[in-house]
Amino acid sequence: MLAPVGISLEELQLAARNHGLPLETLRHDVTPIGLHYLLIHFDIPQVDARTWRLAVDGLVERSLSLTLEELKERPARTLAVTLECAGNGRALLSPHIPNQPWLLEAVGTAEWTGTPLAPLLEEAGVQHAAVEVVFTGLDRGVQGDVEHDYARSLPLADALRDEVLLAYAINGQPLPPQHGFPLRLVVPGWYGMTHVKWLRSITAVGKPFDGWQQAVAYRLNEDTPVPRMLPRSLLVPPGIPDFLTRERRLSAGPCLLEGRAWSGHGPIERVEVSVDGGRSWGDATLGEPASEFAWRGWSFRWDATLGEHVLACRATDASGRTQPDEGEWNEGGYCNNAVQRVRVVVTY
Amino acid sequence: MLAPVGISLEELQLAARNHGLPLETLRHDVTPIGLHYLLIHFDIPQVDARTWRLAVDGLVERSLSLTLEELKERPARTLAVTLECAGNGRALLSPHIPNQPWLLEAVGTAEWTGTPLAPLLEEAGVQHAAVEVVFTGLDRGVQGDVEHDYARSLPLADALRDEVLLAYAINGQPLPPQHGFPLRLVVPGWYGMTHVKWLRSITAVGKPFDGWQQAVAYRLNEDTPVPRMLPRSLLVPPGIPDFLTRERRLSAGPCLLEGRAWSGHGPIERVEVSVDGGRSWGDATLGEPASEFAWRGWSFRWDATLGEHVLACRATDASGRTQPDEGEWNEGGYCNNAVQRVRVVVTY
Repeated sequence: MLAPVGISLEELQLAARNHGLPLETLRHDVTPIGLHYLLIHFDIPQVDARTWRLAVDGLVERSLSLTLEELKERPARTLAVTLECAGNGRALLSPHIPNQPWLLEAVGTAEWTGTPLAPLLEEAGVQHAAVEVVFTGLDRGVQGDVEHDYARSLPLADALRDEVLLAYAINGQPLPPQHGFPLRLVVPGWYGMTHVKWLRSITAVGKPFDGWQQAVAYRLNEDTPVPRMLPRSLLVPPGIPDFLTRERRLSAGPCLLEGRAWSGHGPIERVEVSVDGGRSWGDATLGEPASEFAWRGWSFRWDATLGEHVLACRATDASGRTQPDEGEWNEGGYCNNAVQRVRVVVTY
Repeated sequence: MLAPVGISLEELQLAARNHGLPLETLRHDVTPIGLHYLLIHFDIPQVDARTWRLAVDGLVERSLSLTLEELKERPARTLAVTLECAGNGRALLSPHIPNQPWLLEAVGTAEWTGTPLAPLLEEAGVQHAAVEVVFTGLDRGVQGDVEHDYARSLPLADALRDEVLLAYAINGQPLPPQHGFPLRLVVPGWYGMTHVKWLRSITAVGKPFDGWQQAVAYRLNEDTPVPRMLPRSLLVPPGIPDFLTRERRLSAGPCLLEGRAWSGHGPIERVEVSVDGGRSWGDATLGEPASEFAWRGWSFRWDATLGEHVLACRATDASGRTQPDEGEWNEGGYCNNAVQRVRVVVTY
């Protein structure tokens, strides 16, 4: 099923640090801590919460400097949000793209608790000249030969949306170091690069941000930034795996196929399942998502017959977007939401 | 620093599921949940704690069947234990070994809480004919063309040691699915394959266990099983990383190098550090370990001078074992505890 492309040891270093969601744990509506995907560009910063401050500055009437306690005293909201890396699926594209080598598992859903961003920006008083808000983390390193702090921006209108949170807790616990302790941005519907971790400043700016992670990385081409999350569906591979190949072995008979589907462009309206490698499709039964911004569970009854089968699933969202059979190659290897295929050998 | 060996996409599938400890998080005495290394041979089983039972059976006077609540009512002990995968360092061996492609990060230290195993075995009454105890998990799959439940044994004397626990909590929390919920074995001093997760049975047997994970895997050769953990030291790479290469950039001047060292053969007695690629060595200052079975912190003051440097560290334990410069190749790629080397570019 997999192309015999070699992954370099440099890429392996990234794969050993940054991990995906083991697909069988798609069973959890909310991903337990430690199973949610992680992509950490540089190192996880060591942060002393007692001295840490969040700056709100730039084109604002009143610059703010807030402690973690002050942020926790503000109105809190908890929201289940599905996050996916924009590079998910990259390692399945050809020609090969040297970068974090994701297959399909760079996703997770967590219950984030934090304070909404919009009231904080209102309190600071964003000036009319501001067009974007830049979010900067404490993580610093070199990428594309440029040394920089990790930073990303949002157009002002997107930053002011109700669902955008400054999160200090995940699944009811303080953020662990790898998820951005003490504070991270959560922007439901957007790929993971937007959700800046280890936040140190929020800055209103008067022209589009030209930082490396914004202007060079995360672009489909020079003119097109990575959009909101494209629809994707993943299934829990049924049966038991082979350790090395991860090929599945399953007993013949009734089998309930289950999975999750999500999109940043609107609710998932349809999931189709194929048990013959995509020649024919049937509709899955959809469950209710944990929130407007969380994946939607689905199930599909299959009577598994002897022999080899290739299972596949594809999602369609309310905007009409559907997963393609093949992903479109681009230099950064972003947005490959091609249909997942899982080979299963059914035996007695 | 790294050989240009290609990793197959099959191995990448394993690397995307099973992750190492980001080396900068060696700073934590106890590894936060989600940063501890994971090696899961098959799938993470879905376990309902209400119906789950632990069987204690085989050559015992009284077979037992215990609920999770009954296990939690027994005497509890919390112990900080360093766990390392026996395959740590495998991907740095040549010729290449197709298996979980660990570089150096397959390690972690957690505070495990559970009930000691020995009193439970005494209660069951192990018969004189018993020579080993077999621990079987709920995880099932195919490895080496053999379908089996994951299972490992211990000689009776090792199973009866005081420090062997049946753990139901990690870092004060119920085990998350990936660490063996609801119950796992913890055998301080041994590599990770011994610490069977998702335990379903403990069986006293009258002859050496010949299950696949015991008799075929985890052997240096036909006659030699993987021993207790060999000494190893790892350092926190100083400075900041390049995203893709992970090469380090550091400012000239005083720099405190820090790391951790551990061994399953006795306390760490010495850690040496080299800043010239192993030509000369100096002694690090050792800290106190969190327990007899946990890694030991160390630090080393370095005045970083301009230019390229290769940092290295090596540990020696109370048994006199020291890390080698080069690991010895074996078919399974086990026990490669060769000295870590980290390239650093020091600039103004």
